[in-house]
Amino acid sequence: MAYRALTEQEAVEYVRNLPDFFTAGGELSSHEIGDGNLNLVFHIREDATGKSVIVKQALPYARVVGESWPLTLDRARIESEALGIQAKYAPDLVPNVYHFDADLALTVMEDLSDHVIMRKGLIAGNRYPEFAKHIGRFLARTLFFTSDIGAHPYEKKALVGRFINPELCKITEDLVFTDPYEDADTNNFNPLIREEVEAIWNNAALKKEIAHLKYGFLTKAQALLHGDLHTGSIFVTETSTKVIDPEFAYYGPIGFDIGAVVANLLLNYAGQHGLKSDPADRAEYRQYLLETLESVWSEFASQFIRLWHTQAKERSAHVEGFWQDFISDVLQDTVGYAGCKILRRVIGLAGVADLNSIEDDTIRAEAERLALAIGEALILQRANIKEVTDISELVKQVTQAIDHQEASI
Amino acid sequence: MAYRALTEQEAVEYVRNLPDFFTAGGELSSHEIGDGNLNLVFHIREDATGKSVIVKQALPYARVVGESWPLTLDRARIESEALGIQAKYAPDLVPNVYHFDADLALTVMEDLSDHVIMRKGLIAGNRYPEFAKHIGRFLARTLFFTSDIGAHPYEKKALVGRFINPELCKITEDLVFTDPYEDADTNNFNPLIREEVEAIWNNAALKKEIAHLKYGFLTKAQALLHGDLHTGSIFVTETSTKVIDPEFAYYGPIGFDIGAVVANLLLNYAGQHGLKSDPADRAEYRQYLLETLESVWSEFASQFIRLWHTQAKERSAHVEGFWQDFISDVLQDTVGYAGCKILRRVIGLAGVADLNSIEDDTIRAEAERLALAIGEALILQRANIKEVTDISELVKQVTQAIDHQEASI
Repeated sequence: MAYRALTEQEAVEYVRNLPDFFTAGGELSSHEIGDGNLNLVFHIREDATGKSVIVKQALPYARVVGESWPLTLDRARIESEALGIQAKYAPDLVPNVYHFDADLALTVMEDLSDHVIMRKGLIAGNRYPEFAKHIGRFLARTLFFTSDIGAHPYEKKALVGRFINPELCKITEDLVFTDPYEDADTNNFNPLIREEVEAIWNNAALKKEIAHLKYGFLTKAQALLHGDLHTGSIFVTETSTKVIDPEFAYYGPIGFDIGAVVANLLLNYAGQHGLKSDPADRAEYRQYLLETLESVWSEFASQFIRLWHTQAKERSAHVEGFWQDFISDVLQDTVGYAGCKILRRVIGLAGVADLNSIEDDTIRAEAERLALAIGEALILQRANIKEVTDISELVKQVTQAIDHQEASI
Repeated sequence: MAYRALTEQEAVEYVRNLPDFFTAGGELSSHEIGDGNLNLVFHIREDATGKSVIVKQALPYARVVGESWPLTLDRARIESEALGIQAKYAPDLVPNVYHFDADLALTVMEDLSDHVIMRKGLIAGNRYPEFAKHIGRFLARTLFFTSDIGAHPYEKKALVGRFINPELCKITEDLVFTDPYEDADTNNFNPLIREEVEAIWNNAALKKEIAHLKYGFLTKAQALLHGDLHTGSIFVTETSTKVIDPEFAYYGPIGFDIGAVVANLLLNYAGQHGLKSDPADRAEYRQYLLETLESVWSEFASQFIRLWHTQAKERSAHVEGFWQDFISDVLQDTVGYAGCKILRRVIGLAGVADLNSIEDDTIRAEAERLALAIGEALILQRANIKEVTDISELVKQVTQAIDHQEASI
């Protein structure tokens, strides 16, 4: 069947024709619920049985910008294949995929309506006690088993070939690593922080570090990344975590995925300035966020190291001192990429609700200044980060400095 | 036509059937002249016209080991495609390819019989005044235009996909980066240097650095490398240089190709201990080799930097200070990879004639000890190498220390 974007009704007919989903001739409802930027998402449900599925279809353009920004449908293949690999290593942490249609760039998958998008949950001030353990395991296992350390050398190289993803990578190259650091048309920031943004555009030391991090994104083919692991790509309940939307998957630096999680926890941390008005509440929730951040890293690192010691396929893995250096490099990359992802969410095209839902422009600007200061500090000081608690310390120092600055104005 | 290894006579018939090479019905001679490890090489000549070609055919196994080591025929495609890309950027520095046959894994190319293999030329004590300029340009242009700095991001990623080369990379991974540093069956070294080899096997600091360099070989997808750029892959005359045999081509660290050239100049430098008996002659030729090494780097760096400033496609290329850091990283990689390639030629499966042609075991052992000491110093001290003259200084220091040591025994 040649590609065409489905209507709600066509999506129902499509899944009705698949065996084993719904009662033959049963009544199905269909709602397009996509709030992302690149895809149609249909929620299809049979009230009589309570059964439901999600039909996700890639559009041949970036929805956020319009049809003027064409975008490959191959990303649907990338996403379904990445979900398959992630399911192999962390089956409980990704949605089940029931069916993939390459011609329609369409995937039928598990309905996760009983979960909430983690970003919304954090904005609502909820806590997810299992999250750090789950995402740490997801990161450790998906990254280890697709790396040169954990995969056979032929398998790794075959995967590199399957996940060459130039168009989606280009979005990241432009929107995360380039446009925000110059006066680009795509940028979109609060006019009240123009002074701070211009200071970033003129900060030669910072821009050089970002150029290095971008070059790492372009060249460090370390593991099959999710590629866009922000809190909008994670569904949660108190007891369950599901990672979705790996259409940006490609072979890149391990720290880029971990850094995305870290960045989005810290964007919420910065947003607390406007999200919670009571200082004690705010401090307590921020502490929860920093503890979560530390646990994400610790879970990742301990599981990754355990896999390294027990399941490495690479013969040099057991050379004395190598794994310690390796983990230390990943931590510094994590910190640097977290910094870039924070800056771009404040300055660049795609903001985050953790900040954008703060209605008062002045208060939002204060939260954004804190985010910028944290992002900048992470990038410039990442070589000094030896343990994950150094990140929390740095974030607290920056927060105090910014609070002090604002109090003295 | 299904694959079969050709005989000399079949090779003649094959080229006779191609248009525009030889006189119809003319008398052709055919000689299999391959002295490499992996391929058949036929030299076919028509005496009446003086016309000649080379027919290179990949064997489905590694000839050096025998039919027990199967090896993909896809390497013939990789080689012919790599030659095509190199010809685009340095047309005078590679052989012309006239014809490629994927089924037979066979390439018909320019006959370079008027050139000599550079390794033989250096062993004979010849000098090649144009070599450094030529190879520096070859490196600068082929590496720049296939890198993320010089290629469009889509073009670079497409090239990564075309040059995924797992089986040939595995040979390098094993024989350059792993086997020589442990007591592996493939190793093949002079029994007189066992003590020094065992010291390497027990040198934890050295092995850790080699593990890092191997990991860089596995993950740093910086540019389309030749992949095996030793002096046996370079044909020379006094005025011409031709780089052949890029069947190991893949996306890897830029310093790996430059390091191969550096390593092979230094292997000849070490071999001079036995190749030239007169100390003054030896010192003079060694000085020529070090000056050549310095010129190779300087030509590479100056041309690469000029391309960077004038032809970069990557937007971050012009960020202040980035190119200086980049060149400095490439120099340190060059030094590290040169060190590995020196060590493996002394300890591992495939030696070099620069050392192996020294007939006296004791004198050869002295040359090999010098090579090991140079290789080790390059790997361990590469972080201190800031300019190419630091390499020459280090080599001279190591040479003096070894000379002193042998004099005092």
